[in-house]
Amino acid sequence: MTSLAPLSPTPRSTLTRKKNRAATDRAALYEVLDEALICHLGLVLDGSPVVLPTGYGRDGDTLYVHGSTGAQSMRAGANGIDVCVTVTLVDGIVYARSINNHSMNYRSAVVHGQARPVTDADEKMHALHVLTDHLAPGSWEHAREVNAKEFASVSVLALDLAEASVKIRAGDAVDDPEDVENGTAWAGVLPVRTVYGEPVSAGYLPGDVPVPEHVLKRS
Amino acid sequence: MTSLAPLSPTPRSTLTRKKNRAATDRAALYEVLDEALICHLGLVLDGSPVVLPTGYGRDGDTLYVHGSTGAQSMRAGANGIDVCVTVTLVDGIVYARSINNHSMNYRSAVVHGQARPVTDADEKMHALHVLTDHLAPGSWEHAREVNAKEFASVSVLALDLAEASVKIRAGDAVDDPEDVENGTAWAGVLPVRTVYGEPVSAGYLPGDVPVPEHVLKRS
Repeated sequence: MTSLAPLSPTPRSTLTRKKNRAATDRAALYEVLDEALICHLGLVLDGSPVVLPTGYGRDGDTLYVHGSTGAQSMRAGANGIDVCVTVTLVDGIVYARSINNHSMNYRSAVVHGQARPVTDADEKMHALHVLTDHLAPGSWEHAREVNAKEFASVSVLALDLAEASVKIRAGDAVDDPEDVENGTAWAGVLPVRTVYGEPVSAGYLPGDVPVPEHVLKRS
Repeated sequence: MTSLAPLSPTPRSTLTRKKNRAATDRAALYEVLDEALICHLGLVLDGSPVVLPTGYGRDGDTLYVHGSTGAQSMRAGANGIDVCVTVTLVDGIVYARSINNHSMNYRSAVVHGQARPVTDADEKMHALHVLTDHLAPGSWEHAREVNAKEFASVSVLALDLAEASVKIRAGDAVDDPEDVENGTAWAGVLPVRTVYGEPVSAGYLPGDVPVPEHVLKRS
């Protein structure tokens, strides 16, 4: 394994609560970012917070998000914009003997930074490749490539993973000693998982187009 | 069925892109909010956007979120704060014959508003009930109730569902006519679902505490 630089927390990326849930190594950050499907992109528009769900992709310490050139969020980011990208995986519902100790098992990553519009054509095409590999691994090699018109209609923002924090809650329920001793309620974890179902071929495909391996192996 | 008021979009809750994906009735909003497990709460702290994953609960047209009284987000909301709450369900990966038409099936709700701290004791206890019913239905009746110290240590914010939008992408892949005619790649939808696994009892439970029906029926 290569050596991984620790996360470099600034005040806003340093957890003020439940510090025991803070994971401070880069491997944990990469794991969360690589496993989840979508992120929630936060920005300030006309003074108000806006949070939008969107796809993303990671290449090393760069996170890419993309959208239509017409999208408000992408226009706002055209000159660089302060963003917060949050990625969350829910792993379980934690039941405790007391209401107060109910919780969730989860892994979340929060990245702060100035998003940079990707204007260099080579980097932009690379970013689309990275985004596609995240959403649909194998499609970049399998599907029809991006043409010039399509390429022009998409905007890409890049965010450096320099200022990031990871928070993880895992494992068993925790109860107060008096509830452990005298409580009667059930306590434990109900696992939560994201799964893929059976692929459904598009209605307009001829009947003899098989579901390719890169899709099949995901489900 | 009772009659549902339509959503009341303001400029910031009116979709500027892909208007065909906008669902405008309240039933769609309720469905998304009631099915998802967590929301992403966006606020502005020291001029920067911050997006935090958190639990929530809905009662009619009020959304409740809670956190420790010490949490930065809760302290910021103590006098009322502009927030954006986004809830997203991912339903599928959409593969197309072209990279450009790859997409996701999803349902998302975005709510804007001024969050109000819940200070009335009765409403606050009601909010904790609503939050518990969302996270762990049945636990409010089953587990040990919230005591005075626990009650004091939690902050609750309420958000009116007046300014909200719902966006839905569902159904088949869509390809350009030339790709439908001449393309060779596979296209279709890989469904994505969130499922519950087998409940795991806490290590400190005596062996004879059965998993209760309200947990069992979820998995």
